Amino acid sequence: MDSLIANPDLHQRGYLMPIGGAEDKTARMVILNQFVDLCGGKQARLVVIPTASAFAVETGARYCDVFGGLGAANVHCLDLKERQQANNPKEIEALEDATGIFMTGGDQVKLVSFLGGTLLGRKISSSLAQGKTIGGTSAGASAMSQHMIAFGRSGAAPSQRMVHLAPGLGLTERVIIDQHFRQRDRLGRLMTAVALNPAMLGMGVDEDTALVINPDNQCEVVGSGSVTVVDGGDLQHTDIHAVKRHDPIAVLGVKVHVLTHGYRYDLNTRQPMPPRQNLL
Amino acid sequence: MDSLIANPDLHQRGYLMPIGGAEDKTARMVILNQFVDLCGGKQARLVVIPTASAFAVETGARYCDVFGGLGAANVHCLDLKERQQANNPKEIEALEDATGIFMTGGDQVKLVSFLGGTLLGRKISSSLAQGKTIGGTSAGASAMSQHMIAFGRSGAAPSQRMVHLAPGLGLTERVIIDQHFRQRDRLGRLMTAVALNPAMLGMGVDEDTALVINPDNQCEVVGSGSVTVVDGGDLQHTDIHAVKRHDPIAVLGVKVHVLTHGYRYDLNTRQPMPPRQNLL
Repeated sequence: MDSLIANPDLHQRGYLMPIGGAEDKTARMVILNQFVDLCGGKQARLVVIPTASAFAVETGARYCDVFGGLGAANVHCLDLKERQQANNPKEIEALEDATGIFMTGGDQVKLVSFLGGTLLGRKISSSLAQGKTIGGTSAGASAMSQHMIAFGRSGAAPSQRMVHLAPGLGLTERVIIDQHFRQRDRLGRLMTAVALNPAMLGMGVDEDTALVINPDNQCEVVGSGSVTVVDGGDLQHTDIHAVKRHDPIAVLGVKVHVLTHGYRYDLNTRQPMPPRQNLL
Repeated sequence: MDSLIANPDLHQRGYLMPIGGAEDKTARMVILNQFVDLCGGKQARLVVIPTASAFAVETGARYCDVFGGLGAANVHCLDLKERQQANNPKEIEALEDATGIFMTGGDQVKLVSFLGGTLLGRKISSSLAQGKTIGGTSAGASAMSQHMIAFGRSGAAPSQRMVHLAPGLGLTERVIIDQHFRQRDRLGRLMTAVALNPAMLGMGVDEDTALVINPDNQCEVVGSGSVTVVDGGDLQHTDIHAVKRHDPIAVLGVKVHVLTHGYRYDLNTRQPMPPRQNLL
């Protein structure tokens, strides 16, 4: 993944790393290791945001332990009890020196209704723009999207009202990120989201799998599962506007790619690519 | 409204004019007159996009007649039968010389699933960026939003799952536009949308009423009804992540303004203002 790492002399956007949830935290920890590396390895200064979780204190402490064990120089957990704290510069000053931010799993609606429109919410966006790495797992991955999947139904095929979208944190504008993807049978809801506006690109990330999006919009898959790309760009036809209740919808001409470890994807050209030959 | 009209020597974004539906088409036609004026009055060259309508041919012809009667120099109706035509440069070349684009009512999901990701969809965005005026009524107003209300339930108070959002055409990023607002009792669904991410600003436009958004993000209300602004910026608390099924949700600290003809609103500072003294 060396060639994915940008020139640190150039001031540019940081890496974005959505993870599909349930990533290995005890064995080789390929994904979390990769996150720490992108944040500077032994120089990494991390802020964990566990707000999505219903057990934020425990969840935050768990990730702090793991990142500490992986050798990060400093790990700070933002323990916010209420929305007003997210507007208090004192509470969030740890972000100033951070090299990376990690958003835990839980409920993406809790995370976004808590952070949206606050100083902390804006700070997460500006941190990415300033070159910091942003990682997130499960709810923390979904919330990265401009058009966020709030919740939805399971199933392989698209149906009306199968997916509820909400405005997310907007760290990526065109990509709708879904998680626990094959484990929870979510292709149908992602196709439904893309059918609503075929300009969108769906990315369904499996458990213990991540997508690393570099500052130039080049992506690479890391982990034991796959990332399913749903591209509506060449969609020929859908009847989504005419279908009633929860009935199945027709979708003609959606392009799907299933990418495993090392496979790459160019968000600018929407082209998938095989792994590099020198992949470890 | 003279002072809303921008300096034509400067190359800047155009006007955006969402209309709440059912605007007067036979009497004084205050709103449609205003739209033609913003497009250049007697020099106006208009393209009507009736794709949202289930009776696109008839709807398109009706608006062409009205705009012709109001003195526009040229009116062209884009009669697209299928999505592929929206990718054909020949079909949409009328947009090159246009000074304004008007999207009719109907179903915003039909409009966006038809245009999203096509050449025409991108051309509408770039036309606005190049300084052309974009108007739209009912579905054509909703579709302007980045976060578009696809459909939802009626009612004055917010409830879970009350609103379905979809990625819209993205002509305005932060504003969620709703229409037929007081006539169809839609405050609840707009508050639900804002509670999902309090960074958003809801704008509910009544029938026979429009919001004129100038290139500097200064807005003014035109017409016989009102525009209801729902600002989540100072939201203190919501339990939207915890509420189940279709139960009522709590929303604390949302700011609401109801603006009538001549009232103004600054999208940059989120401040409402009374009418100008020299208002006609």
